[in-house]
Amino acid sequence: MAEELKVFRTWSSPFGFRIVHALKIKGLEYETILEDLSNKSDLLLKYNPIYKKIPVLVHNGKPICESLVILEYIDETWKQCPLLPQHPYDKAMARFWAKFGDDKIFPPIRSALFSQGKEQEEGVATAVGNLKFIEELLKGKKFFGGDTIGYLDLAFGWMANLISILEEIVDMKLVDAETFPLLSAWMSNFSADPVIKDCWPPRDKMVERFKGFRGPHLKKVA
Amino acid sequence: MAEELKVFRTWSSPFGFRIVHALKIKGLEYETILEDLSNKSDLLLKYNPIYKKIPVLVHNGKPICESLVILEYIDETWKQCPLLPQHPYDKAMARFWAKFGDDKIFPPIRSALFSQGKEQEEGVATAVGNLKFIEELLKGKKFFGGDTIGYLDLAFGWMANLISILEEIVDMKLVDAETFPLLSAWMSNFSADPVIKDCWPPRDKMVERFKGFRGPHLKKVA
Repeated sequence: MAEELKVFRTWSSPFGFRIVHALKIKGLEYETILEDLSNKSDLLLKYNPIYKKIPVLVHNGKPICESLVILEYIDETWKQCPLLPQHPYDKAMARFWAKFGDDKIFPPIRSALFSQGKEQEEGVATAVGNLKFIEELLKGKKFFGGDTIGYLDLAFGWMANLISILEEIVDMKLVDAETFPLLSAWMSNFSADPVIKDCWPPRDKMVERFKGFRGPHLKKVA
Repeated sequence: MAEELKVFRTWSSPFGFRIVHALKIKGLEYETILEDLSNKSDLLLKYNPIYKKIPVLVHNGKPICESLVILEYIDETWKQCPLLPQHPYDKAMARFWAKFGDDKIFPPIRSALFSQGKEQEEGVATAVGNLKFIEELLKGKKFFGGDTIGYLDLAFGWMANLISILEEIVDMKLVDAETFPLLSAWMSNFSADPVIKDCWPPRDKMVERFKGFRGPHLKKVA
């Protein structure tokens, strides 16, 4: 039986790209269902009745939700080009840092994007502080996964695209090459990878999209 | 070389018990280091410099933090008495629901414990709503893991002990046997399991402990 593999996502969601990247790395064929979150499809609501969110991966009719859970599922189901490290300790570290990124880096960056003034500055300061831990992880490595892109690179992948977009929108620097030489190099290496590069939407479209999230009263910053 | 296995926890932390339960199920010997969170040990700060929280498992000098990450590490390192299901889809479901418990059930219950009036009622209502999803998972099963206690039982283990303690403290019913017949039965079965039973601290000590978290202005409820 041919595998049925569907990805429900939006065209711009950084969490959706985690799944796209993983499937591309594994060399899997899949169908994309682009959702409009202001008018969610019946299928999305059926497949993710709890959170009603993208991304959802549907494999032979069975849905899997939550992007980090989906990444592990993909890696366990298709063994080629492993994403997670093999040793349990390295796996634990990858899981720990992926959760750290979602809990401690994404929220302050999101908060900075959605605010201005003191709240925005605090979001940036918190994000920069937590990014310093990430910088340390890259010592002696090209990717978080070592020589090749792995699970943690995909979990952090949104940073490579979104941080510079946020910097442009709020006119503040988060990741400069002097303070974050390794993270800056990783952002370039990750974005330049042929598999990753082909997936990103055009930068100007993404800037417009994320500017739109700020709401009219916040749009003009600089 | 003999294995060195240390668990940093407090005597009452529900997340610490996840690790204790897993190690007991696996039949592993370990050393317990009981922390006083108002005066954290240098070792705890060394082993968990990011969150400075318990539980931490230290295996041959290497620390692992975050209780769900530790559970997976234990299961991958010691193969006897598997905790996670074997099939990738079942594993994904277990991970999804464990995260759901931590994100959507624990916080409203904690909020109910730390508040009163409208906020407390809202916490209880949210928790009850989300517990209904958990009730569904038990259809046709004694434990979330099937016939035996598994990863998801350990992830939800705090409910078996803490929910009835919270009910006593705030004098409100969360899980009644009529609305939650399967969850009520699971709570009894889980608590009665010989491995689990031996680990719980005495109930009256736990009630005093969690009453203490409410602060003097909230202590008297009923």
